[in-house]
Amino acid sequence: MATIAPLNAPIRTLLGPGPSDIHPRVLAAMAQPTVGHLDPYYLRVMDELQSMLREVFRTKNRMTMAISGTGSAGQEAAVVNMIEPGERVLVCINGVFGNRLFDMAERAGGEVTKIERPWGEVFEVGEVKEALARVKPKIVAIVMAETSTGAWQPIGEIAAAVRDAEAMLILDTVTALGGIPVEIDNWQVDAVYSGTQKCLGCPPGLAPVSFSDRAVEKILKRPKKVQSWYLDVSMLANYWGSDRVYHHTAPINMTYALHESLRIVLEEGLEACFARHRRNHLALRAGLAALGIEYATQAGHELPQLNAVRIPSGVEDVPVRKALLERFGIEIGAGLGVFKGKVWRIGLMGYSSRQTNVLLLLAALEQLLAEQGHKFEHGAAIAAANQVYSSAK
Amino acid sequence: MATIAPLNAPIRTLLGPGPSDIHPRVLAAMAQPTVGHLDPYYLRVMDELQSMLREVFRTKNRMTMAISGTGSAGQEAAVVNMIEPGERVLVCINGVFGNRLFDMAERAGGEVTKIERPWGEVFEVGEVKEALARVKPKIVAIVMAETSTGAWQPIGEIAAAVRDAEAMLILDTVTALGGIPVEIDNWQVDAVYSGTQKCLGCPPGLAPVSFSDRAVEKILKRPKKVQSWYLDVSMLANYWGSDRVYHHTAPINMTYALHESLRIVLEEGLEACFARHRRNHLALRAGLAALGIEYATQAGHELPQLNAVRIPSGVEDVPVRKALLERFGIEIGAGLGVFKGKVWRIGLMGYSSRQTNVLLLLAALEQLLAEQGHKFEHGAAIAAANQVYSSAK
Repeated sequence: MATIAPLNAPIRTLLGPGPSDIHPRVLAAMAQPTVGHLDPYYLRVMDELQSMLREVFRTKNRMTMAISGTGSAGQEAAVVNMIEPGERVLVCINGVFGNRLFDMAERAGGEVTKIERPWGEVFEVGEVKEALARVKPKIVAIVMAETSTGAWQPIGEIAAAVRDAEAMLILDTVTALGGIPVEIDNWQVDAVYSGTQKCLGCPPGLAPVSFSDRAVEKILKRPKKVQSWYLDVSMLANYWGSDRVYHHTAPINMTYALHESLRIVLEEGLEACFARHRRNHLALRAGLAALGIEYATQAGHELPQLNAVRIPSGVEDVPVRKALLERFGIEIGAGLGVFKGKVWRIGLMGYSSRQTNVLLLLAALEQLLAEQGHKFEHGAAIAAANQVYSSAK
Repeated sequence: MATIAPLNAPIRTLLGPGPSDIHPRVLAAMAQPTVGHLDPYYLRVMDELQSMLREVFRTKNRMTMAISGTGSAGQEAAVVNMIEPGERVLVCINGVFGNRLFDMAERAGGEVTKIERPWGEVFEVGEVKEALARVKPKIVAIVMAETSTGAWQPIGEIAAAVRDAEAMLILDTVTALGGIPVEIDNWQVDAVYSGTQKCLGCPPGLAPVSFSDRAVEKILKRPKKVQSWYLDVSMLANYWGSDRVYHHTAPINMTYALHESLRIVLEEGLEACFARHRRNHLALRAGLAALGIEYATQAGHELPQLNAVRIPSGVEDVPVRKALLERFGIEIGAGLGVFKGKVWRIGLMGYSSRQTNVLLLLAALEQLLAEQGHKFEHGAAIAAANQVYSSAK
């Protein structure tokens, strides 16, 4: 075999749908010496991690931990533990990740009904209530921040309706957590999952999850084993709980990285972190408006951390994204599914959400759009963004 | 919440059942800048990773890749993709990881029969042939290097018998890969999985797997979807194959780490790597013999990379392991299951398998066993180990 050269990873500015930029402190933490997964030091790191995860999820749930896989593994953990074969399930779909919930729920043996909204829109509580009355599900699953559409789904009222209907709620907060308020206890969510590589600013590889006591009780009472051994919460509880019984070898260094990224989030404070995401979103939005670029998401429901915008007519998708990457080192996300070729997804998540990135992106886009013959007032984008920053002070 | 201090991970010498010591080059590679999972640079890294994995597995299988989870996720990937509900499965059990295969196979809906051997022993081809004739399974699963017992299971003849019986073989090489010869193509194995944190010397978090073309054909023809979305090879094939269709966000920095650890293994060369594992095993073994410590594994089947040895009578398990960790920074493994309190598991895997570690462990053990009143000739252990190293030159 030809000799393979050492890695020499380029330095990107990650403004796609994740992974987001990683703070140097997180990369340094990840490279700390590996210890054993039952080492007293590591058990302390796990305790601290759980306590910080409870803070960002705003929950007291004992069963709060990190699944040893990426966000999709957390999603599957929520689905296969909560849904028992034959149970009625209601899934709300308005993008890729709602579809994935549906697919997983079927594989878990659920009797699954879906309700749908066009891409970019969110669900009203009324239509969920109607479906609850019609389907009488045991489990409802919904996505809070649809990464494929940039739509911010309000959860409070829907969660209350689910509770009133005596169902349990699975909530996808992969792109939400750390970017917008997630209120697991206030909303009484039963199972929630997230990813590390979005607003927490950690490399991908772990999935924070939390299960309510009520959910854990349901899981422990299941007559049939959870179909996944790897994701079985009834066994994971013995490793992440006080017993520390070996289940599988935890991804030690990824845990270090998540530990440091949570420290960074909590140092800033959750409210300040949300405000920063909001401020940079407003600046980007003002700049994009000056370039004649519009949002693809239902008005009033745009996620600050994931800006799904329509590619202006006459502008080519792939050449612009390619040039952003090759000439400016900037990654933005392509549209998925029905948004393919029509939408760009601009992430301002975690450590990526900062003024320098907003200005750099607007400067680069201005150059590339001009080259594509797109018409706009030169310099107006940067000025508009700067105005937001000035007025925010 | 009380402020949580930055990580300050202790430097251990990892001589347990994994994770093993991590070469500084691997930790440095893991801390390289995160790029996107569809970045052209990352796609090249994936190509290189696949090509190196094929070399260490000694296979040409196209479907060779890393599952985004730890070794147990690789195990589950092999099981849930290969076993269709209702199919007859034969599982060979002689320790914890055979039991785990059995558990997973049942969860996958297999009609599972087990054959068993006492802990520490290995299977003869004759008894497997007898079971094949009796059970007529579609799938057979067996562990090559039982991490719980240190037993080295010969595979060649058993693989041929499985093939003769027109069944497919799932092979566990979690602790085997990189430490002893694994011959996926020669043995015509259909599904194999491993972990990164054993003889590959990489932190835990990924699971190298490989599926034969025959296996992939079976998976693609399944009438019912694989029960796990996250581990579904029919979808993973589109991301790891030439299409590069997004499935889930890969653990970028873990991939960097595995890339560098495979580079290190292949720089040394597989045969040299196996010889090093063998040499350090023989030195450890000679030293342990001088301390009056015996192997718990069937004679002639001791794994060089995992030395399962009986705790001498009169010596207490926990205090010795605790003192090894606290006073010498050395981790060794406890016994599991029927070996609990009776056996120590001493790993010499990957970068942990080196002369300095063998001598350090023997020196520390000598001190601690003397304190426990165990009788032996002082200095003889180190001398015996050194003799092995001298004669190997």
